[in-house]
Amino acid sequence: MDIDRNAPVGVFDSGVGGLTVAREIMRNLPAEKIVYFGDTARVPYGNKSRETVIRYSRQIIRFLREQKVKAIVVACNTASAFALDAIRDDLDIPILGVIEPGAKVAAAQTRNKRVGVIGTLGTVGSGIHREYLKKYDPDIQVFAKACPLFVPLVEEGWLHDPVTVEVASRYLKELQDKNVDTLILGCTHYPLIRSTIRNIMGEGVCLVNPAYETALELGRLLEEKNLLSTGTQQEEFPYRFYVSDLADEFKAFASSILPYDVEMTQKIDIEKY
Amino acid sequence: MDIDRNAPVGVFDSGVGGLTVAREIMRNLPAEKIVYFGDTARVPYGNKSRETVIRYSRQIIRFLREQKVKAIVVACNTASAFALDAIRDDLDIPILGVIEPGAKVAAAQTRNKRVGVIGTLGTVGSGIHREYLKKYDPDIQVFAKACPLFVPLVEEGWLHDPVTVEVASRYLKELQDKNVDTLILGCTHYPLIRSTIRNIMGEGVCLVNPAYETALELGRLLEEKNLLSTGTQQEEFPYRFYVSDLADEFKAFASSILPYDVEMTQKIDIEKY
Repeated sequence: MDIDRNAPVGVFDSGVGGLTVAREIMRNLPAEKIVYFGDTARVPYGNKSRETVIRYSRQIIRFLREQKVKAIVVACNTASAFALDAIRDDLDIPILGVIEPGAKVAAAQTRNKRVGVIGTLGTVGSGIHREYLKKYDPDIQVFAKACPLFVPLVEEGWLHDPVTVEVASRYLKELQDKNVDTLILGCTHYPLIRSTIRNIMGEGVCLVNPAYETALELGRLLEEKNLLSTGTQQEEFPYRFYVSDLADEFKAFASSILPYDVEMTQKIDIEKY
Repeated sequence: MDIDRNAPVGVFDSGVGGLTVAREIMRNLPAEKIVYFGDTARVPYGNKSRETVIRYSRQIIRFLREQKVKAIVVACNTASAFALDAIRDDLDIPILGVIEPGAKVAAAQTRNKRVGVIGTLGTVGSGIHREYLKKYDPDIQVFAKACPLFVPLVEEGWLHDPVTVEVASRYLKELQDKNVDTLILGCTHYPLIRSTIRNIMGEGVCLVNPAYETALELGRLLEEKNLLSTGTQQEEFPYRFYVSDLADEFKAFASSILPYDVEMTQKIDIEKY
């Protein structure tokens, strides 16, 4: 199949969290166009089953294919953990999740071979980070901890709040006790409370942000497949956003974390796909 | 239309929370059979739009009609707030939400005519409690406060935790400052942290649990329509549970809050309805 190298990259997430990944792609691959889908009608994915997350992801893939994307980034950790293998089989374009790029860097960074992972119940329960880390280095010991209150705390806007510090201290205590020297922020919301996590874990612990690593990995993948945008064409809207609910709220949140004002956000009925 | 008075009552919620309503129906109307649906594949509803909640509720109503229920209880505050009027129009059987029964009792209880309401962002944003309270007594002043962290805290199991006390103190402070003498627990999860809320608000404030009031109201409604079960038939499974995801997890949670072990929980594809 001939893939148009100047087609957009499709990026999807259960909601707004994946915008932290889109932001890194915009920063690091400025010639790339993006079609973003946030499944705000069914958010969150972190407390749902593998089977359901696969079904939702397949619907989104069908929508993104209709948008003629040249590659797909699964910007949601839970969907990357549960659905990536299943949906990759259906596809003839490159697809990339956020688990592998984070795990690869963590495996390269750790010195004492003790790596921590924090994420949703779904992501942590899947054991997927352990799988990848062991693939890179079988000697690595992995300590994973689900932090289900982090997303609601971030969405409440309590980023530097004593309550968030107390909750984080409690969640992170067992990872500190295990003496990890590297910690994967395995949920797209977590980079937004990075400084709180840094204060608790200390300067000695390397925090891995998979959003950033995924953007770099995407660049390598597109280059390898000869799919990097040649950036010749000019478009009014290089970034297009679609959601399954609450388009206005999404637009407001997106504009607050992206480096420009989001113009176009459109609501679609994802259950039809 | 002839309705079978010994048919089950349909009860639905976005997830497990509505079980607090089902529990009150079991306690107060022991002759009634129940078909419960929890939309665990799309939970929560509290952060979704009116339009989406109406669409989800309509699908569930179609499923419950297929189960030949004689009446429907919308056990979800957000669905009651957003969808009750829309779905009532389609129905030829009685339907009841959890907002009106709670508001009715609060209006009767308050002495200083200052009533507080706590709930999800969706429920509080809808202003529906104010509407009903004003209908019962136009002199009542209503003070509403969204408490989005309560549901994740309850689901984390931190029912009597210092973090929950701190979060609750902060959320409830402005209602205390307003000197409310009655407080509606406008979300099905909140009765599970009733004692924390009671400690903060003090003995002088009357806490209204809409789950209980809804069960009583259902009894009155069925009696009025001549639909109270005659309780002559014996069935092996008077209570049947359906969910859209994670049937085993639901069963475990349900068994922990209901007065008996839940035998049958079945997963269905609600998007097909």
